Amino acid sequence: MIDFNSILKDIEPSQEEEEKVHNLAKKLMEIINFTAQNKDIAGEAVLLGSVAKNTWISSEDNGDKDLDIDIFIKFPLTTSLDDLKSHGLELAEKCIKQLDGTHEERYASHPYLTGTIQGYQVDLVPCYDIKHSNELKSAVDRTLLHTQYVMKNLKTDEEKEVRLLKRFMQMVGTYGSEFKVGGFSGYLCELLVIHYGTFVDVLQGAWDEWEPSYQIDLMDYGTAKLFNDPLVVVDPTDENRNVSAALTLQKMSEFVIAAGNFLTKPEKSYFYPKVINYNREDILEEFSQRETTSLILTFSAPDIPSDALHPQIRKTEKSLVKILETEDFSVLGSDSWSNADAMDENVGSDKDTDHEGNKTATKKVVILLEMNTWSLPVFKKRNGPAIWDKDNTSKFLKKHPDSWVEGDQWKTLSKRRYQDVDSLIHGILKPDGISRLRVGKHLKKEILKNYQLLDVVDVLNSEETDKGLLEFLHHYLNKDEFLIR
Amino acid sequence: MIDFNSILKDIEPSQEEEEKVHNLAKKLMEIINFTAQNKDIAGEAVLLGSVAKNTWISSEDNGDKDLDIDIFIKFPLTTSLDDLKSHGLELAEKCIKQLDGTHEERYASHPYLTGTIQGYQVDLVPCYDIKHSNELKSAVDRTLLHTQYVMKNLKTDEEKEVRLLKRFMQMVGTYGSEFKVGGFSGYLCELLVIHYGTFVDVLQGAWDEWEPSYQIDLMDYGTAKLFNDPLVVVDPTDENRNVSAALTLQKMSEFVIAAGNFLTKPEKSYFYPKVINYNREDILEEFSQRETTSLILTFSAPDIPSDALHPQIRKTEKSLVKILETEDFSVLGSDSWSNADAMDENVGSDKDTDHEGNKTATKKVVILLEMNTWSLPVFKKRNGPAIWDKDNTSKFLKKHPDSWVEGDQWKTLSKRRYQDVDSLIHGILKPDGISRLRVGKHLKKEILKNYQLLDVVDVLNSEETDKGLLEFLHHYLNKDEFLIR
Repeated sequence: MIDFNSILKDIEPSQEEEEKVHNLAKKLMEIINFTAQNKDIAGEAVLLGSVAKNTWISSEDNGDKDLDIDIFIKFPLTTSLDDLKSHGLELAEKCIKQLDGTHEERYASHPYLTGTIQGYQVDLVPCYDIKHSNELKSAVDRTLLHTQYVMKNLKTDEEKEVRLLKRFMQMVGTYGSEFKVGGFSGYLCELLVIHYGTFVDVLQGAWDEWEPSYQIDLMDYGTAKLFNDPLVVVDPTDENRNVSAALTLQKMSEFVIAAGNFLTKPEKSYFYPKVINYNREDILEEFSQRETTSLILTFSAPDIPSDALHPQIRKTEKSLVKILETEDFSVLGSDSWSNADAMDENVGSDKDTDHEGNKTATKKVVILLEMNTWSLPVFKKRNGPAIWDKDNTSKFLKKHPDSWVEGDQWKTLSKRRYQDVDSLIHGILKPDGISRLRVGKHLKKEILKNYQLLDVVDVLNSEETDKGLLEFLHHYLNKDEFLIR
Repeated sequence: MIDFNSILKDIEPSQEEEEKVHNLAKKLMEIINFTAQNKDIAGEAVLLGSVAKNTWISSEDNGDKDLDIDIFIKFPLTTSLDDLKSHGLELAEKCIKQLDGTHEERYASHPYLTGTIQGYQVDLVPCYDIKHSNELKSAVDRTLLHTQYVMKNLKTDEEKEVRLLKRFMQMVGTYGSEFKVGGFSGYLCELLVIHYGTFVDVLQGAWDEWEPSYQIDLMDYGTAKLFNDPLVVVDPTDENRNVSAALTLQKMSEFVIAAGNFLTKPEKSYFYPKVINYNREDILEEFSQRETTSLILTFSAPDIPSDALHPQIRKTEKSLVKILETEDFSVLGSDSWSNADAMDENVGSDKDTDHEGNKTATKKVVILLEMNTWSLPVFKKRNGPAIWDKDNTSKFLKKHPDSWVEGDQWKTLSKRRYQDVDSLIHGILKPDGISRLRVGKHLKKEILKNYQLLDVVDVLNSEETDKGLLEFLHHYLNKDEFLIR
């Protein structure tokens, strides 16, 4: 096996970082608690999350920041939700102002503040001070129980195993329970280490034992069978919750494959970003060699949060593919992408504004459709009613006098409205066609405003193809490349 | 309603024909019985079939000969099958020789003779003299029971109704229980008239009442539910038999549609051959307008009976379509045809021999494939094993290193062996490819010997397209044309 110490040196926070983070957390809590006392608010700050659990990945080495300082402000169960919200946000705002931080309001089950203070991202979240999941009033309350459970059950020498696992997950692309990823949450990683003991044992267990509906029930609640998910990890703090409910079969599979690859040939490189070499010419060449027709549908991304945007894009992509297939245009593959996240991360930087502060780049959505068939003959064979259904038969035959019967069903040839895939897509994306598409209202609005439908070859031949798009196209052609080193 | 008398004049045998037929039948029976007595053979001739039942269609008017004179030679149940065969055939041969007829041996459940005597087709069939279906020793024995049942239960004035029904069925294309047709047998027509009373009532009943699994149980046996066929008509002579077992849903539907058409607008023309106007140019024009690519696969028909040939052709056609669809070539429609029947009917005529008696025309099989897609990109997306299946995954990845996972299944792009439908078909029809095709050994032999794969446009552009083929192509483009006048 490889020497994990050199990796840990890179991903464990230095003593200095640890002190800085804990000092900042302490200060935040002191301010909140002081203000609360002053204002006679029954809120009490508590440090939760990966800082409390000592499982965060050092923010010094990598850009993929794992570190959130999670300060929760606990209120007694008797507090009204209105009071919890108003008092909680009041304490949070005061605290951030006092430390000259910036902040914005976000929403989980209720509003919380996320701010940047001394270079660290800080979440200040009002919650109820529950002792058991059956007292749960808001989804965020669980964090309290989760942190307590991990602090109590994760041994000190297992903390580094969690860090290795989280880092490995990040680098192979299976980390993160947000919809866009559908992967493993930090808490899930911690439970896996508690269950299996070490990083290597988690990988070995996943590779040897996992299969669809695999069950882990640390507390022996016996409730695992209640869940119909690819992986079931019963929440030790709530027997009625599957911690890995958000994990897709896709990401579970990817992790198992990456685990197998690592175990077969362990390499340190699994813990570092994979350097992907790609260029416009190679991508163009590969698309050409496939002899398919690949279309790029692109439009502006609506200004909605990432966790709302990605499901909408995915849904639209799948729906579009389904319509094309229904209309007999065979789709070899599809994928979607948005530069919205990358641009959100650059908020405040001057990358996307010109010298007068105007936005030059726009957030956009890209849906790629690689077609096996893009042009079809004029007629389509259509099913009519069964011949026994006299009323509908009569209507059908009036409309389609040249029908014939197969078995006991009427068949007819009807003229295709769209003989090529471009015109079909243009037809779908018109105001009177878009009702066929399962598309959220935000995307719908943007599409109806404006969209472009381009051949990927033309896009790649134009000099200005942007880096993110190239990376996306490269990844489409080289799926799973992150699962192996 | 139309006047059926003028139709009956054409399809009921004249008194003269009736006398001739009955006299011939009588003579045949006398000869057989005389010979039997002379040779001390326990066989007794009996007239069965549509002549006995007086339901045959006059042979004077039309080429579609309905008239077989069925003479059965009954043997006691104690006779051994060997004796029945040898004595039966001996009596039959003697009889035909004595009347200067020609004959050949045919096979149902056992051999019988079919001959031509004085211009009439005569079947001489040895059978057991059973009184009840539970004594059945051979399938042909039923004819005895069927004839007796109809003679006893079909009223004299219903005979003309049977003739109208059989004629209607012939002209709309639903008559005949042989595999090639899959339609209504004569006995089934008779039972329908016994059940409904008149020709018009049969049509009305079919149109108003029939639906899949419709049941008619003349003897109230209560056994109809035992059968899982489109139409169930319990055999009055055998509660465990469905008379319409050979009727396909297709032909049942066609009859119902034709019945509806006739009832809506009764026309005498339903009882006469429909004149179909077609010509090479129109057919060519229509195929071109469809913008599909239609291929004609043709090869010599093996020398096997029609009832064996047609299932094989049909099976081969369906199997070919399935392979093409599996390989992503979308098939708009297909059909098959053989000139073997037509040529069999011309045996003895000089149509297919030149002045030296050599065969000039050959019996051939034609399979038509109308393609929506006939050319495809180089890659095909293929499923691999589930990722949990480690052994097969390892083998699969060795063969397809560029695979990726979707859900929990490996996917890969593999190069198509055949990018166009012509080369695929040529590949299938080679000795090392034909195992993919579900094809009977007789057809297989002919295909491997020689076949042609032609574009229908080229076939139609060549001057020599034969009439039967043109008719077949016309009918492919104009399905159900016989169901309406």
